[in-house]
Amino acid sequence: MEFGEKTLSSEVIYEGSLLTLEKQTVEIFNGEKANREIIHHAPAVGIIAIDEDQRLVLVKQFRKAIERPILEIPAGLVDPGEDFLAAAQRELEEETQLQAEDWQTLDKFYVSPGYLDEYLQIYSCRGLETVSNPRPQDADEHIEVFRLSLSEAKQAAASGEICDMKTIYAIQYLEKQLLKEGNHG
Amino acid sequence: MEFGEKTLSSEVIYEGSLLTLEKQTVEIFNGEKANREIIHHAPAVGIIAIDEDQRLVLVKQFRKAIERPILEIPAGLVDPGEDFLAAAQRELEEETQLQAEDWQTLDKFYVSPGYLDEYLQIYSCRGLETVSNPRPQDADEHIEVFRLSLSEAKQAAASGEICDMKTIYAIQYLEKQLLKEGNHG
Repeated sequence: MEFGEKTLSSEVIYEGSLLTLEKQTVEIFNGEKANREIIHHAPAVGIIAIDEDQRLVLVKQFRKAIERPILEIPAGLVDPGEDFLAAAQRELEEETQLQAEDWQTLDKFYVSPGYLDEYLQIYSCRGLETVSNPRPQDADEHIEVFRLSLSEAKQAAASGEICDMKTIYAIQYLEKQLLKEGNHG
Repeated sequence: MEFGEKTLSSEVIYEGSLLTLEKQTVEIFNGEKANREIIHHAPAVGIIAIDEDQRLVLVKQFRKAIERPILEIPAGLVDPGEDFLAAAQRELEEETQLQAEDWQTLDKFYVSPGYLDEYLQIYSCRGLETVSNPRPQDADEHIEVFRLSLSEAKQAAASGEICDMKTIYAIQYLEKQLLKEGNHG
């Protein structure tokens, strides 16, 4: 049996500054009709910045969708036409006033492909230095910067202060790196 | 400075079967107004099922939001009032015709907390057995089941056939487990 769904009709319900909501009627594998609600969203970058003491650089900000402040790795949207690595370097500088010497491209993934086309490219970086005249934070962002060791980050995840997928991924990445290096952090 | 955003006004733009789109006007940290576009979505469960040969159980299905079939760990929405572990066991059975003896609760995380309240509870399970009279798949789902070793799964991630966050997380989890057990898979 073929995998695929033919779009029979489509309607844009909402087109906002951040996201677009589209409603589709599709023909599914068995010939029946089904509805699909789809969110279109710009791609994003997330940055696992690890300092010389093997600590993760995290940012704390209020997230209205979940009505509380949380600790996350630095991240942000890729501007139209912008290079992804350049976006990661820009976001790191805007959110943490840091730049990094060594950049590595890690996984790229869709965050919830059942109904959302947002994907996130993850980078890790080391060799951190404070930027003397950093680019400013976005005007509507209020961010505080923290550095957590692996065990502190795991504790923050256990308490729920770290609770988003990209940051849990970052903790797992750091743990794997330390295991490989024989350093159980 | 306090973290928080006061809701000044709110409008439900769309209420569908899968998601609700809300537009808010909020007062941000500096007293200015800002808009927030927020998607409300039911919580979900994802299941890292590992067989006796240390292979991941994965399902292939077409995802309309990204217009292609992909390989993912079994997952699905939690029904209103349903216990999360029960939802995981139900989804595993519906999607793979398997049940598992040993269940472990892993991380819980928001998939994109900047604008979306969906969170995903991850379970791992071992001791897999085929169910003789399994609950049927959802009528609008067409799913094929595969089992991949760690190296096969990493290859599928490199080729893009595995490309969603929960499944990348599962690969990283399996890799970490095998490293801990001294088995480099």
